[in-house]
Amino acid sequence: MSLTEQKCTPCQGGVEPMPRERAEEFMDQVPGWELTHEATRLQRRFKFKNFAQANAFVDRVGELAEAEDHHPDITFGYGYALVEIWTHKIGGLHENDFIFAAKTNELFEA
Amino acid sequence: MSLTEQKCTPCQGGVEPMPRERAEEFMDQVPGWELTHEATRLQRRFKFKNFAQANAFVDRVGELAEAEDHHPDITFGYGYALVEIWTHKIGGLHENDFIFAAKTNELFEA
Repeated sequence: MSLTEQKCTPCQGGVEPMPRERAEEFMDQVPGWELTHEATRLQRRFKFKNFAQANAFVDRVGELAEAEDHHPDITFGYGYALVEIWTHKIGGLHENDFIFAAKTNELFEA
Repeated sequence: MSLTEQKCTPCQGGVEPMPRERAEEFMDQVPGWELTHEATRLQRRFKFKNFAQANAFVDRVGELAEAEDHHPDITFGYGYALVEIWTHKIGGLHENDFIFAAKTNELFEA
């Protein structure tokens, strides 16, 4: 099943963060994203023509966050948006983060 | 005339950024904001109960940005939003930035 067909599942902590090798295996399913902070976070920078387009994209990422109950940190301004995602409760990456990244890519491409 | 009664005016560059002493005179009109980057930028961090409330506030700041044609950089996530404003064309602060900051405070208090 592809990442975009899955839903983020509640993550209660007490789970180990994904090791780097496992995270790297997922990377070809989330083009444009990169691992940061010692492979404990995912981020992608998206380019836009102006503020309004960046803002409209961020609105949709915000809706996705509520639908998935998984909340990224988003920075945006004139012509760009930067989305950063990880699972705070485990201090690193969970498969949920890759699901969120893949769905964010779909929003960008839509 | 108070800052919130004014509109951001187009700033075409070729204007000197506001000196620190002048910026400091404006600070009591924008409670909660601080000068950063050697007094060339203004920023404020706003707290919220969750992601949805932060996102709703950011939506309104985005609308203000379009209305004023003056565009901040905004970072937000679960429970917070950080708004940073300065005038890129002059590499520092203009009265417009204080108008924007004062109006952002109004949105937060509304």
